[in-house]
Amino acid sequence: MTPSEILATSPLDLAPYEDLYRHFHAHPDLSKQEKATSETAAGHLARLDAFEIHTHIGGYGFVGILRNGPGKTVLLRADMDALPVQEVTGLPYASKTTQERGIGSGDVKPVMHACGHDMHITCLLAAAETLVRLRHAWSGTLLVLFQPDEERGEGAQAMVDDGLYGKHNIPVPDYAFGQHVMRLRAGTVGIRPGTIMAAADSMKIKLYGRGGHGSLPHQTVDPVLLAANVVTRLQGIVSREVNPSESAVVTVGSLHAGEAENVIPDEAELGIDFRSGNLETRQQILSAIERVVEAECVASGSPRKPLFTHTRRFPPTINDTSVTAKLAVSFHEHFKDHFDPDTPRTNVAEDFSTLATCQARPSAFWFFGGIDTAQWDEAVRTDSLDEIPGNHSARFAPAIQPTMRTGVDALCIAALTFLTGGE
Amino acid sequence: MTPSEILATSPLDLAPYEDLYRHFHAHPDLSKQEKATSETAAGHLARLDAFEIHTHIGGYGFVGILRNGPGKTVLLRADMDALPVQEVTGLPYASKTTQERGIGSGDVKPVMHACGHDMHITCLLAAAETLVRLRHAWSGTLLVLFQPDEERGEGAQAMVDDGLYGKHNIPVPDYAFGQHVMRLRAGTVGIRPGTIMAAADSMKIKLYGRGGHGSLPHQTVDPVLLAANVVTRLQGIVSREVNPSESAVVTVGSLHAGEAENVIPDEAELGIDFRSGNLETRQQILSAIERVVEAECVASGSPRKPLFTHTRRFPPTINDTSVTAKLAVSFHEHFKDHFDPDTPRTNVAEDFSTLATCQARPSAFWFFGGIDTAQWDEAVRTDSLDEIPGNHSARFAPAIQPTMRTGVDALCIAALTFLTGGE
Amino acid sequence: MTPSEILATSPLDLAPYEDLYRHFHAHPDLSKQEKATSETAAGHLARLDAFEIHTHIGGYGFVGILRNGPGKTVLLRADMDALPVQEVTGLPYASKTTQERGIGSGDVKPVMHACGHDMHITCLLAAAETLVRLRHAWSGTLLVLFQPDEERGEGAQAMVDDGLYGKHNIPVPDYAFGQHVMRLRAGTVGIRPGTIMAAADSMKIKLYGRGGHGSLPHQTVDPVLLAANVVTRLQGIVSREVNPSESAVVTVGSLHAGEAENVIPDEAELGIDFRSGNLETRQQILSAIERVVEAECVASGSPRKPLFTHTRRFPPTINDTSVTAKLAVSFHEHFKDHFDPDTPRTNVAEDFSTLATCQARPSAFWFFGGIDTAQWDEAVRTDSLDEIPGNHSARFAPAIQPTMRTGVDALCIAALTFLTGGE
Amino acid sequence: MTPSEILATSPLDLAPYEDLYRHFHAHPDLSKQEKATSETAAGHLARLDAFEIHTHIGGYGFVGILRNGPGKTVLLRADMDALPVQEVTGLPYASKTTQERGIGSGDVKPVMHACGHDMHITCLLAAAETLVRLRHAWSGTLLVLFQPDEERGEGAQAMVDDGLYGKHNIPVPDYAFGQHVMRLRAGTVGIRPGTIMAAADSMKIKLYGRGGHGSLPHQTVDPVLLAANVVTRLQGIVSREVNPSESAVVTVGSLHAGEAENVIPDEAELGIDFRSGNLETRQQILSAIERVVEAECVASGSPRKPLFTHTRRFPPTINDTSVTAKLAVSFHEHFKDHFDPDTPRTNVAEDFSTLATCQARPSAFWFFGGIDTAQWDEAVRTDSLDEIPGNHSARFAPAIQPTMRTGVDALCIAALTFLTGGE
Repeated sequence: MTPSEILATSPLDLAPYEDLYRHFHAHPDLSKQEKATSETAAGHLARLDAFEIHTHIGGYGFVGILRNGPGKTVLLRADMDALPVQEVTGLPYASKTTQERGIGSGDVKPVMHACGHDMHITCLLAAAETLVRLRHAWSGTLLVLFQPDEERGEGAQAMVDDGLYGKHNIPVPDYAFGQHVMRLRAGTVGIRPGTIMAAADSMKIKLYGRGGHGSLPHQTVDPVLLAANVVTRLQGIVSREVNPSESAVVTVGSLHAGEAENVIPDEAELGIDFRSGNLETRQQILSAIERVVEAECVASGSPRKPLFTHTRRFPPTINDTSVTAKLAVSFHEHFKDHFDPDTPRTNVAEDFSTLATCQARPSAFWFFGGIDTAQWDEAVRTDSLDEIPGNHSARFAPAIQPTMRTGVDALCIAALTFLTGGE
Repeated sequence: MTPSEILATSPLDLAPYEDLYRHFHAHPDLSKQEKATSETAAGHLARLDAFEIHTHIGGYGFVGILRNGPGKTVLLRADMDALPVQEVTGLPYASKTTQERGIGSGDVKPVMHACGHDMHITCLLAAAETLVRLRHAWSGTLLVLFQPDEERGEGAQAMVDDGLYGKHNIPVPDYAFGQHVMRLRAGTVGIRPGTIMAAADSMKIKLYGRGGHGSLPHQTVDPVLLAANVVTRLQGIVSREVNPSESAVVTVGSLHAGEAENVIPDEAELGIDFRSGNLETRQQILSAIERVVEAECVASGSPRKPLFTHTRRFPPTINDTSVTAKLAVSFHEHFKDHFDPDTPRTNVAEDFSTLATCQARPSAFWFFGGIDTAQWDEAVRTDSLDEIPGNHSARFAPAIQPTMRTGVDALCIAALTFLTGGE
Repeated sequence: MTPSEILATSPLDLAPYEDLYRHFHAHPDLSKQEKATSETAAGHLARLDAFEIHTHIGGYGFVGILRNGPGKTVLLRADMDALPVQEVTGLPYASKTTQERGIGSGDVKPVMHACGHDMHITCLLAAAETLVRLRHAWSGTLLVLFQPDEERGEGAQAMVDDGLYGKHNIPVPDYAFGQHVMRLRAGTVGIRPGTIMAAADSMKIKLYGRGGHGSLPHQTVDPVLLAANVVTRLQGIVSREVNPSESAVVTVGSLHAGEAENVIPDEAELGIDFRSGNLETRQQILSAIERVVEAECVASGSPRKPLFTHTRRFPPTINDTSVTAKLAVSFHEHFKDHFDPDTPRTNVAEDFSTLATCQARPSAFWFFGGIDTAQWDEAVRTDSLDEIPGNHSARFAPAIQPTMRTGVDALCIAALTFLTGGE
Repeated sequence: MTPSEILATSPLDLAPYEDLYRHFHAHPDLSKQEKATSETAAGHLARLDAFEIHTHIGGYGFVGILRNGPGKTVLLRADMDALPVQEVTGLPYASKTTQERGIGSGDVKPVMHACGHDMHITCLLAAAETLVRLRHAWSGTLLVLFQPDEERGEGAQAMVDDGLYGKHNIPVPDYAFGQHVMRLRAGTVGIRPGTIMAAADSMKIKLYGRGGHGSLPHQTVDPVLLAANVVTRLQGIVSREVNPSESAVVTVGSLHAGEAENVIPDEAELGIDFRSGNLETRQQILSAIERVVEAECVASGSPRKPLFTHTRRFPPTINDTSVTAKLAVSFHEHFKDHFDPDTPRTNVAEDFSTLATCQARPSAFWFFGGIDTAQWDEAVRTDSLDEIPGNHSARFAPAIQPTMRTGVDALCIAALTFLTGGE
């Protein structure tokens, strides 16, 4: 039997999971503070009475292990954290939660699952139950991993650094899979071989001048002009240096210097974010930024070397070609025309792949649609897709169905593809 | 008799004025809040029993009128306000004063006479007493004007707008004179025909983009790149457009845009200050700034016109050629080698000239040195003049003598030059 | 029978075509001067005694029509012109040809088939003979079109403008196909749905300043600074405005202004080339260039609007999805592992598609390898593929086989795919 | 007697010199080719039968020595070369001369005394005759120096390098004087202490990139973008680095890169000229240019260091303060209101001062007017001074009188000032 046929033998009633989803949606947790979410999810998993559960890995991360005979080890992953966004969806289960950003900080924020991780958690729990029910039909080891702190790109690495495959003794997966609900038509699934999501890096750069009175520029080194030259010069990285087919982006998102119109300040600070499709391009851009910034400081006669502070780093999400090809066959059989094997890559970033690359294991990641089908079709008709809110919007919330059914099925199909057959 | 000879007939004992100076130095007032300073000075002037005193002109400004027979009307001006600077001179009479910036604002600042206006007030009071004692030797009308709010460039205009020559009925001067203590050797006086101090203008400029995610620049209009291009483009005004002999300066003192590295913001704000030696150049620069900024907004596809907010404006201080030539003769006779008729013009600005230009009357302004002579000569010897603190420094305080004597004499000589002789 | 099976029934001896190829290689013609090449090729085609031949279409272009019963009309196209390059391949049949660029101009250039069009001609002639021999196995109309002046992007349009489908009465094809020999392993064929080659546009832009003495910049409008600002500003089109996934390129290839160091010139001239994957992006870039250049002229106070002169225009080469899918099936069957259905798109440009888009007909274009297989494999082994000369190099010449066999087969397979079956 | 009184004792008839001027005007010589001019002038000087004449110093330069008893040595200098300009004055004595630029070069140019050196030569010859006739009234040594190759800034240095004060044994002057006819009212003379004419430096800078196809920028280092960044970056030298009072200018007069729109070239060449008022500022600008250019090359990842070639160098013309003060007294007595002791400095350059600075001797240089008085006064009346052609214009020719009389008198007064009196 094919994975799709196996799955068809035991359809799961998702109604309880829809309630669970609404609960997660109404009770989001900020990154690194996913205590309640993690406990609820782990409690639910425990009630399946099939998984060996390891908690508190890299913060509130946890893993359930289902050992089901000889065979491959497959890891399915969901991420759990939410965003400091004030929800305005108007849904009956909209979040009213606020949380301190950093316990004890006094910096209280509204919190919202504006990125759909609540859907990811729920789908993975429902897939776990499904695969428990289908355990006679497959053989091997299933890992369900619930990751904290994806939004800031640190949770996957934190789990690895905390001994995920070391002191916690989680079996190293042969294949790792993850998924993300996106601004696509609900019911659809898309994947592509190679890079599907970009690497993302953020940094702050402090540039040093020498301040003085605005009427006496010759006694100063003007950091405002230096910063302006850096910004214009950085455009050349994407326009001239990176292969045009790489879809790279270098953004200066913030620039701050000086207080008064007539005082030349001592320094300027840039905030830079860049996207790259693979590690070679990432390194190329990083080197180019450093080269440009350092040379511009020399051009200005800056009295000190610039200070680079890396503030965030996401790896590229690169789907293994062979694994993706096999998934494509299964997904195509199951989702038919609702499956796109060549979904466009995005410059949005994820840290999922770290869970596999840290052990040099192949992985794949796919998108599934979250937009109500009637809403989507009407937007297509009126050429207004751009007006549908996307991830991170205060108005983003997936239609529960067929979104959830699709997400559960995709996880099950992926696991079954690699846990059946003699391979 | 020449002015210098007249002055020699009645030397004033300055000891009480040295005490008065120390009092003013220890009790500075911020701009627009010169109540105590104004009352002390006006009270002192009243005790001379010679001046008709008009107070509360344009805030705490006041004028004393000494009508002394037929002849010309000469205005002598001192400015009264201090700066939000924490004094670190260590002087026994150093300021410990703090003041709210804006009564009731809660924004409490340390206050210091870091620009030497305390010396200006004291010199003018002593000159007033001297000229009262010498009233037999001259004929005409003497005006002593104490101006508020010079630092923000609004006091002279405020006095004019408040009816200085209107409802307050102060006689329009035939000649107006002002002076400033500077980082020059104490005992010296310098003047020059034409522009001696630049015009200064400050403005804020808001540039509009359209924000979005840092990985999706094509959905945005990037105001950071726009701002950077404006800054680099503005350099061309001084380097290419203004006559090189004009000594113009255009400074972008502040630049602010964005909060996060990975979010392209909606707007950017520049703070600009520029200096020009005359009104034609001022207008040329102003037009060029507007032309460049507006064109760069078009180049970026900015969705809205930029917003210009003028925050400060000082006129150029242009010494009347004929008046200055006459002053030069008198000053040279009195100060001998300590007088420089060709002192370099400075890009620092003053609003004094408004008191004369508003009535199309000629005026002149000079500098007098405030640096202790021994300290100065040692600095010359060791080529370390640059290390002597200048105006606005927290370490700037003139040596009381011969600074004060020079400032008093210069005011008296100027008045006598135009109040004697049959002209 | 499949196209590949049909083709196998009548293998053509290519030895005479190898000689013909060497002849074409040794006797290249510059663009618009392909008289000898055209006559040789048309003569060869005539000797097949099957085609109705129409010559002198859009210059030296010609078309052969083989009417072979009811069915679809398929156009196969080869381009004929060579480049002003001094060949340094050292081949026994290397070109020693020189030609005047523009008859009577006196501007004599060495000429070389450095782009492989000699191979295109020969393959198309051999394919014509093959399809004549296989005429019993297919039904419909075959057009073989030999186009002049591809290098300057004007030949296809010239043929259309000269009445290709009008006064010359060539049947409008249902499908049009073209191919290009590339720096790929000989024996391989690659295609992709959608954009396979970029649109390319070239233009000159004259920027107007106002000249003067280098020491008196304020009396001038400096076109050198203007040009520099245009160049730096144009970088933002690719770095910020175009979707990063579009692989767009904007290049300023030339910039000329001024003669003497100390004279500010009156004007500057830029030469710009840009690449885009579709007509929307092309228009976006074109508009952005105009917007940026015009705004920068305003920013400089330029006395005249810039002058844009379009010097070259290639359309994008966009493979019809459905046609390409059918080709992919046939090519895969025939070339097996030597066929790549997802060959990377290139920013190099072609004018082939005009022959189809002018009539709103679908078309497809593919690449076939020209690099000797042993050389290629060695270069892969030593990671030195970059050192193999590519198209337009003075050292570029395809290995005759299996290059030619592959090119002939690809053309035949394509034609047979759409001239067999009842469709 | 004062110099002016001495001069009045022996008025010279200038009619023959007016003829001589017309001869020189009609027969100009290009720089380094002043053979005929030099011979004519030296022949004329010889006929005075008073000067010891040394010819062929630094090319066609020559010096006449008049030893006239004990006292100071005064050098008066005229420059002799003309410009490659086609005269369009329409004067009866307009130049119709053409000359090869570089004998044997075949590069034939029209030649014109468009800078007024013909007037300089004639005035100096007439002054020489006058001073011979007045030899009883002064004592000391008079040097009249006729310099070649001023336009390219090499003649004064060439005379020095050729042993002017060495093997040619010309006495080292105590004072050196020169003058230039300018676009000022004829009859007027202007001087100023300190810098009267700027230093001028010219250079070519080659910037290295790595060329390639315009559609493949990532395989190149784009020298056009590099050059553009250098040009925009260089603006900061004047706008931010040099003291605004220095009147410095940095001009990029030429910029050349690339031939084709779609080919990224290998290199770019800039032509730069800069002006500075003294040697410190000159060095500051030179260092800043090198710093900026080298750093921008690094910022671009340029494969080679930039190549700087200095093409021209004029020193600043700095009038000795004490000498100028003495001249001012004499000039004021003689020229009355037609003398301006504070004439504006100009950014035009001269190499005269080298003749004095090479021996650390004081010098002074002044301007005298060449514009017909009626024409000037009318232009003042109609506010159209800008339309009067200036030096280097094809329409520039001084009114012969009172220009010549003024120039002769100024030279004589200067010499007499320092050759009379017991100093």
